[in-house]
Amino acid sequence: MHGQNQPAYQNLMPKPKNLTIHEGRFVLDAGFQVAIPDKSSRRVQITATKFIRRLTNRTGLFVKYGFPVGLKSSSKAAIVVHYNRSGDLKLYEDESYQIDITSKQIVISAKTDLGVIYAFETLLQLLDNDKDSYFFQNVSITDKPAFTWRGLMIDASRHFEPVGVIKRNLDAMLVAKMNTFHWHLSDDQGFRVEIKKYPQLIQKASDGQYYTQAQIKDIVQYAADRGIRVIPEIDVPGHATALVTAFPEIASQKQHYRLERNAGIFDPTLDPTNPKTYEVLDQIFKELSKLFPFEYVHIGGDENRGRQWDANSDIQDFMKKHNLKSNHELQTYFNVKLQKILHKYHKKLMGWEEIRTKQMPKTALIHVWRGKAGESLVKTVKKGYKAVLSNGFYIDLMLPAVSHYKTQLIPNQANLTPEEKARILGGEATMWGELVTPFTIDSRIWPRTLAIGERLWTNPEKIDIDNMYDRLFTQSYHLEELEIAHIKNRDVILRNITQNQDITPLRLLSRLYEPLKGYTRNKGGTEYQTYSPFMLFADACSADAPDALYFNRLVKSYLQSHAVKDKRAIITCLKRWKDNHHKLMSLRPNPKLVALYPMSASLADLSQSMIRLSNNLADIDTTFVKKLNAQYQKALLTYNDVELPLANSLKALINDWLAAKGLKSIK
Amino acid sequence: MHGQNQPAYQNLMPKPKNLTIHEGRFVLDAGFQVAIPDKSSRRVQITATKFIRRLTNRTGLFVKYGFPVGLKSSSKAAIVVHYNRSGDLKLYEDESYQIDITSKQIVISAKTDLGVIYAFETLLQLLDNDKDSYFFQNVSITDKPAFTWRGLMIDASRHFEPVGVIKRNLDAMLVAKMNTFHWHLSDDQGFRVEIKKYPQLIQKASDGQYYTQAQIKDIVQYAADRGIRVIPEIDVPGHATALVTAFPEIASQKQHYRLERNAGIFDPTLDPTNPKTYEVLDQIFKELSKLFPFEYVHIGGDENRGRQWDANSDIQDFMKKHNLKSNHELQTYFNVKLQKILHKYHKKLMGWEEIRTKQMPKTALIHVWRGKAGESLVKTVKKGYKAVLSNGFYIDLMLPAVSHYKTQLIPNQANLTPEEKARILGGEATMWGELVTPFTIDSRIWPRTLAIGERLWTNPEKIDIDNMYDRLFTQSYHLEELEIAHIKNRDVILRNITQNQDITPLRLLSRLYEPLKGYTRNKGGTEYQTYSPFMLFADACSADAPDALYFNRLVKSYLQSHAVKDKRAIITCLKRWKDNHHKLMSLRPNPKLVALYPMSASLADLSQSMIRLSNNLADIDTTFVKKLNAQYQKALLTYNDVELPLANSLKALINDWLAAKGLKSIK
Repeated sequence: MHGQNQPAYQNLMPKPKNLTIHEGRFVLDAGFQVAIPDKSSRRVQITATKFIRRLTNRTGLFVKYGFPVGLKSSSKAAIVVHYNRSGDLKLYEDESYQIDITSKQIVISAKTDLGVIYAFETLLQLLDNDKDSYFFQNVSITDKPAFTWRGLMIDASRHFEPVGVIKRNLDAMLVAKMNTFHWHLSDDQGFRVEIKKYPQLIQKASDGQYYTQAQIKDIVQYAADRGIRVIPEIDVPGHATALVTAFPEIASQKQHYRLERNAGIFDPTLDPTNPKTYEVLDQIFKELSKLFPFEYVHIGGDENRGRQWDANSDIQDFMKKHNLKSNHELQTYFNVKLQKILHKYHKKLMGWEEIRTKQMPKTALIHVWRGKAGESLVKTVKKGYKAVLSNGFYIDLMLPAVSHYKTQLIPNQANLTPEEKARILGGEATMWGELVTPFTIDSRIWPRTLAIGERLWTNPEKIDIDNMYDRLFTQSYHLEELEIAHIKNRDVILRNITQNQDITPLRLLSRLYEPLKGYTRNKGGTEYQTYSPFMLFADACSADAPDALYFNRLVKSYLQSHAVKDKRAIITCLKRWKDNHHKLMSLRPNPKLVALYPMSASLADLSQSMIRLSNNLADIDTTFVKKLNAQYQKALLTYNDVELPLANSLKALINDWLAAKGLKSIK
Repeated sequence: MHGQNQPAYQNLMPKPKNLTIHEGRFVLDAGFQVAIPDKSSRRVQITATKFIRRLTNRTGLFVKYGFPVGLKSSSKAAIVVHYNRSGDLKLYEDESYQIDITSKQIVISAKTDLGVIYAFETLLQLLDNDKDSYFFQNVSITDKPAFTWRGLMIDASRHFEPVGVIKRNLDAMLVAKMNTFHWHLSDDQGFRVEIKKYPQLIQKASDGQYYTQAQIKDIVQYAADRGIRVIPEIDVPGHATALVTAFPEIASQKQHYRLERNAGIFDPTLDPTNPKTYEVLDQIFKELSKLFPFEYVHIGGDENRGRQWDANSDIQDFMKKHNLKSNHELQTYFNVKLQKILHKYHKKLMGWEEIRTKQMPKTALIHVWRGKAGESLVKTVKKGYKAVLSNGFYIDLMLPAVSHYKTQLIPNQANLTPEEKARILGGEATMWGELVTPFTIDSRIWPRTLAIGERLWTNPEKIDIDNMYDRLFTQSYHLEELEIAHIKNRDVILRNITQNQDITPLRLLSRLYEPLKGYTRNKGGTEYQTYSPFMLFADACSADAPDALYFNRLVKSYLQSHAVKDKRAIITCLKRWKDNHHKLMSLRPNPKLVALYPMSASLADLSQSMIRLSNNLADIDTTFVKKLNAQYQKALLTYNDVELPLANSLKALINDWLAAKGLKSIK
């Protein structure tokens, strides 16, 4: 459906900086070789080998050479790779590359091996075919990223995400040309990393779900092999329930603590006046510093409401004594101490926006996440801090990809100096874990993060939304070859709901409805604990419901031209939605299925009335319109924590048809 | 389709030894508690917690208690667990359990915690529902296994299987009440375990794909938490290409070696006359012995053709000197040396059937895999060896589940003494890795291994094949909750083939065709290297193609009674197969898709003729029959490494219809 009839070079995502099309094509056969420099880095060896596997599985070719060959011996190979040196996983490293495809050879060249691995990803996206063969259009590409920080954060605290989940998402990050994995390892719901000196942390505060240091090392290496640096986050002084569950003595209120099972902002906060607090954090950061080679460590610092501080008279006395006039100043005092600890271990401090207080040294890297995307970011860099942007990139909000895609890192009207602009390092998609499990997390990250990837790599000035979605869906299914489960796990949930009966009727609904956006799925609606069910209908749905996108496009096109073929396609949809309810009702019922009846019925009823309306039947009168309006309202209600993202197009369609009959619009 | 309208207690697999049904049911609500003894083992804590998660996700209940509670404080909990002690993962341990469900409470009792975790699995299978609620039928179950060795072997050498794959298969083994994971860690294609003293093993002989010792420990613990012991296998002296790639000096022929990329039996063999051979193996077994607590270590020993021994004059001299008259005797000499090494590390030796030579001590455990299942096993135990059976359980052969299910471990006519019978420890499904990748392995192991599980746990005397398949498919989809990818990865392969176009026509074909059986998919047909594509149509197909099973049953029923409804159902199938080809042809073509056209066309053509035949059209004459016969033969050809398992029922159907018209049968 989406853009797959286009030549492959039109479906690239992220789009390269420069692409020139030439006549001719390089035709692939089973004898192709990939030649890499004779002493290539692990990174190039691993990526080149995986490139061959992926190409093999995409084409079904029984390749003769299953592994890359040496450049010296095979300079006439189909694909030859040249690069100067291994790249460092630090800020501002050269990640550029060049691809030149002629009918005789494909040449990849880059300054660093980071460029090489990105080139391989672009090349895979360039793979095209007709009915007889696989080929690459002759093109020249020169490419490099707009931003040096292209990140994805995964919250492994609220729900633990096993090593396999992290690894497959690192693979997918490489597809999106993202280079920074931010690992949220500690929060109220769990402390997820083994600290050798303090076994009580994982014994008391992880439910047995944590990463061993060996696993951390393995993942850091796996990430490095994919050009990705890893920044760990220990969120302090708030979001600290897990920490104080293991160490109640460093909490600002002395009591017994238990791991939090709910979502929200909670009071447990570290005591910044207690030397033991720093002793514990020193050890944690000491051990983490050895595990994570990247220069930054994230200390969180967000959403500390300071209630425990306000209620603790010793802390109040301490503040007076040290002339700390507010909780902000106390937290800055705490942060500055942390910065010194990190400095000892040759690390720099990164923290959420709240750490940007008056006294905070400018060496801190600020993670902007509040207010309007542009404003807060501009304010931060104007104050002299380097900054990474995450508002606009909160993928847990289940907003459409386009909303993230539109987020501008450097606002046009901002009037920034070149130095200020340079302090905007890039951005980061944040996958908060309240509502995701290892089973569903992929469908919350992908494919939307590909759009964020393009924002950060290409940073396009003009955007074409339909084209973006076409490319997004084209690249999305390829992620399945990396075991990303965003598509396949939907059907698993649906089989769970139908108890392995025919899932066709549920599949239709799941391609039409979207999970509630923002935080309405939790607070104010159904409340989820960490151990609540997450194999529900809403978990099978995703943002950018594909059939809803299709329908909305169709209606837009129809309303512009009233083409008969568009109307026919619309009626086909409505009939399908009407008939679908009968199919659903014909399944052997169970409580989960029965819960979906009202939703399905509301869509079927509305569809039926709309078909009648479209048919120009004689009895369309005000009574009918009243009923139709009621059905329209009912279809838009919230059912099962999902919503129907068709409000505008259904209403426009209804009103267009009503107007044609001289009837008043519905609201 | 399969048995899901039955009460849940009729779908248990493996069937328990004793099941009594009572009046009434225990109705589940969100307030249910699971109470376990206050100082329960890790095993019970982990399983009980996971039980609650699985129950939660199956029912969608927002449970109040996400974790088990202490028995002392909650003796009136919905589910209460009693047991005496932790079980040891050794031979003959008590694994029995009892479940008593009344309308008020569910009581699990067992001697060991192994019984407890099996009881939880049975209980989950007992979960039933009507349209309003979830419940458990009141039943009493007493259960215990027929055999003490219920194993699954995974070959991680020919294709490496990452930690996540192993873990999810351990989870599924628990569902099948299997207790022994046999890990084939070394073969010609790769040495897959880190040996600290010899880093060259993984550096030179693993392509970077191996288990670290930390990962091994993690998996052994994970298995133990699920009542599963792990036995490692280092296959020697044959199947040793990987070993000699790292240590050419211990090969029987001095040369440079490379990892094998093909499937088959190869010559590289360890030199049993070289002290260095034993030095290397001593170190390997020393390190393995620390990692694997189970009393046995598997040394392979199979398929040594001895060619390198024959060709090496030093070895020939050695044999003369030591009065070793055959390669068998030389291998026994080698095995006995290994046994001494293992003894030093408090381990016993297990090996494939070939090690059962005259001089082999009776303490060796023989892994029977050749000849007729019964005969060889009987011979082995009659000679005084303990034995585990694997012939009949070679799941890589892609035979139907029923063929494994029918395999008798203790042949009726064998005339064994009780002591001999007791030496039959049990059996093991073997998942050889030539044709499986992490992506497809699950669909080769499951669901068929559930049938093997029942053979080993229940060892039923009478079997009902249809009932077995009904239960098999009912339990099969539940494996998806453990992330077993046997169902969902099929669609991923099909999307890869259609390039994300509609997969409906391919899905139909993949539910009808089966991968070639035996080793015909490799030798003699398409030759696969380790790096060949394994995302082909054949990889999307599985043994026991569900629609073929359905059709064969349908035809059987029709031919018995000629019921109109059966005929109608048959014609519906034939029409669907005919129309399917048009759907397939309407997809945008690509080389992988085009390769499927002849297969699809052959089925469509035959279906069309059969519909005509069934319609009693006037022009059914000998010319038509000739054409029909040709179409029938064509449909049964091998296409794309798959076959149509409908030969008998299609022929019977055709001949039944031909006979009705007084026409001669086809052959």
